[in-house]
Amino acid sequence: MAEKLRGACIIGQSGGPSAVINSSIYGAIKTAIESEDITRVFGAAHGIVGVIAGELYDLDLEDPEELALLPNTPASALGSCRYKIADPDKDDTDYKRILEIFKRYDVRYFFYNGGNDSMDTCEKISRYMNKVGYECRIIGIPKTIDNDLFGTDHCPGFGSAAKYIATSLMEISRDTAVYDIGAITIVEIMGRNAGWLTASAALARDKCSGCGPDLIYPPEVVFDFDKFLDDVHRKYIENKNVLIAVSEGIRDKTGKLISQYSSANAGEIDAFGHVQLGGLAAILASFVKARTGAKVRGIELSLLQRCAAHCASQTDIDEAFMAGKGAVEAAIQGESGMMVGFEREYIDGRYTCKTKLVPLKDVANYENKFPLEWITTEGNDITHEFIDYALPLIQGEPDRKLVNSLPRFARLKKILVK
Amino acid sequence: MAEKLRGACIIGQSGGPSAVINSSIYGAIKTAIESEDITRVFGAAHGIVGVIAGELYDLDLEDPEELALLPNTPASALGSCRYKIADPDKDDTDYKRILEIFKRYDVRYFFYNGGNDSMDTCEKISRYMNKVGYECRIIGIPKTIDNDLFGTDHCPGFGSAAKYIATSLMEISRDTAVYDIGAITIVEIMGRNAGWLTASAALARDKCSGCGPDLIYPPEVVFDFDKFLDDVHRKYIENKNVLIAVSEGIRDKTGKLISQYSSANAGEIDAFGHVQLGGLAAILASFVKARTGAKVRGIELSLLQRCAAHCASQTDIDEAFMAGKGAVEAAIQGESGMMVGFEREYIDGRYTCKTKLVPLKDVANYENKFPLEWITTEGNDITHEFIDYALPLIQGEPDRKLVNSLPRFARLKKILVK
Repeated sequence: MAEKLRGACIIGQSGGPSAVINSSIYGAIKTAIESEDITRVFGAAHGIVGVIAGELYDLDLEDPEELALLPNTPASALGSCRYKIADPDKDDTDYKRILEIFKRYDVRYFFYNGGNDSMDTCEKISRYMNKVGYECRIIGIPKTIDNDLFGTDHCPGFGSAAKYIATSLMEISRDTAVYDIGAITIVEIMGRNAGWLTASAALARDKCSGCGPDLIYPPEVVFDFDKFLDDVHRKYIENKNVLIAVSEGIRDKTGKLISQYSSANAGEIDAFGHVQLGGLAAILASFVKARTGAKVRGIELSLLQRCAAHCASQTDIDEAFMAGKGAVEAAIQGESGMMVGFEREYIDGRYTCKTKLVPLKDVANYENKFPLEWITTEGNDITHEFIDYALPLIQGEPDRKLVNSLPRFARLKKILVK
Repeated sequence: MAEKLRGACIIGQSGGPSAVINSSIYGAIKTAIESEDITRVFGAAHGIVGVIAGELYDLDLEDPEELALLPNTPASALGSCRYKIADPDKDDTDYKRILEIFKRYDVRYFFYNGGNDSMDTCEKISRYMNKVGYECRIIGIPKTIDNDLFGTDHCPGFGSAAKYIATSLMEISRDTAVYDIGAITIVEIMGRNAGWLTASAALARDKCSGCGPDLIYPPEVVFDFDKFLDDVHRKYIENKNVLIAVSEGIRDKTGKLISQYSSANAGEIDAFGHVQLGGLAAILASFVKARTGAKVRGIELSLLQRCAAHCASQTDIDEAFMAGKGAVEAAIQGESGMMVGFEREYIDGRYTCKTKLVPLKDVANYENKFPLEWITTEGNDITHEFIDYALPLIQGEPDRKLVNSLPRFARLKKILVK
């Protein structure tokens, strides 16, 4: 056990939000408030941008009952940013400013809740503080629906997004199959570089034959238009109703995003009368319609897949809390320069999850790629290994606070420190 | 009380599905199976098209436990159709065929579950059967998320769609407000001719300041591009984050749908570099981006607003059941040529709902328009009268059967009668 370190802490959030990101900061805030070593608890307004600007919320002034609503409140409650911080060895302007703020408020603990870029920011600040000899314990709290953070079995936010995707695809597959004329439906799913979310579409058919997608296109496989149209046409002839899940990040063999195609420049696939630039699902729909003549609809799940707290996984909420709590506990015990990660264990066949620590340096340099062996050889479906991996992460229904049957989100006062 | 009429019944569904449409047929099927007067219970495969084709399911062979899952199973379980039946006075081909099927199976009860067009079909069949003197009691069971059926306070399906829209907008409004750079988000909502669904966006901010839309554009108001862009720009300057709800059916003063605009033919609003045809939200987003320079996103709620059984209203589910049950009970009591409607009552200030009967003839000829006095004079918002009207309809969380935290929908055998 390291020496006791007394001082204030700052908690910040950055990157795209999720349905459970606030459960993580609740875990951190609650543990920090209850800790004897942490003297004051600040929230950074809009992540590191708020620290640099000296905009800190005094979280000790928040109503505990409102804070307790955070686990069911989607989207970064403290505000977020997409700020790319410089390499401290090249430009230390921001770091000097951060150090100044840390000194002014005697900040000895810094917790940063985000994805790959946020962990990179965290690592750089940690490195700088070490270099200048300012004692401050810095721990990253993972968050990303994309599930691509290195060193952890999975990421908080992924389970809830996966559950929303699976639930929605089950409902869509019922909806689009009601007519006897048949229909082809293409659903565009987030995850530009990793197929975790797109693969989650496969959960829809786990226990429900006839539910869920017939074809799944993750971004790891080079997208071949001819093969795709052949696949879809064959399924259409076989089944009449076809449901297709595609990653927003699919690319052709030259590396060009299919979302940057327009139906006019489809070359060998011919012209379709009009130029289509309205998102990947709409582009694919126009190609499929031209090939099959079927009734075709493109659906973009859009933001709801990352903010649908009403369809969150309680397992995900609990684990997100555990990650925030674990970060503060680890720091109090003397750890720094680490991110909280998850390790899965099966005890008597039952899934359990515990935290571990991963060096921020590793997290900043690698990503958790979707295993290629979990994609079928045809490149248009996902194997059962993924179902076994993902199913435990979507379990449990949240007991949300409702008013008039609508969600009652946390309302923080967010009082800025003078 | 009319004379007892013994015979078989057919239950059919038609038009676009909803989250609770199967709760209605469950009410009808259960009541019919339990009735002494109704000898056999058939389901029409894909509505009236199945009757004409002689494709009937034997619903007496279904497992009662599967039938009991229908209230939480979205989308027409018996299949649907969009078949425009002829005027029987002009072309009676279909009607002769329907009569032949009715006679073959001794069908004396016909229940048809759908929206305006379905009630029109129902009315025509009723008229024909009267004319040829075939005794058959015909009752319509209302269904439409659009809430535009005449003669009823509201329609089964609307409450659940309204709840999904309000919940989603609350979540989206949190998600899109996390960055300090501000963002404009345009959400496209169903309801081509009536503003009921678009107005439901207003529910999102009922008890939650800062949640929900800043501007609402129902289809009843002529859409003026200049006024719209002025509205949005003003709100953007005031609030930084702007959330806008628009009906898919908004039209300009010439009656042209805005969804048929492209950013290239915007005339006085200038050119924007590319042609945009990807749905209304995307078109409006390109105009708003050109005007404000802001980060703008278009979101189409698409099918989920009509099939999201996971976010249904228990009140809606219960009332949908009551409509199906009420239809069968009314027919057994001798009624025909009617649709079941709802009447709202407040007992000690508490909302209650009971069924009544409305002549099919009236339902087929009129529609339930959104009250113009519930739209603000600016034409870009909804008054509190609508909130008072809609709030009771979205109450109650469904107790859904889940397997692995995913919905377990009804799986009917759908055995065709030989």
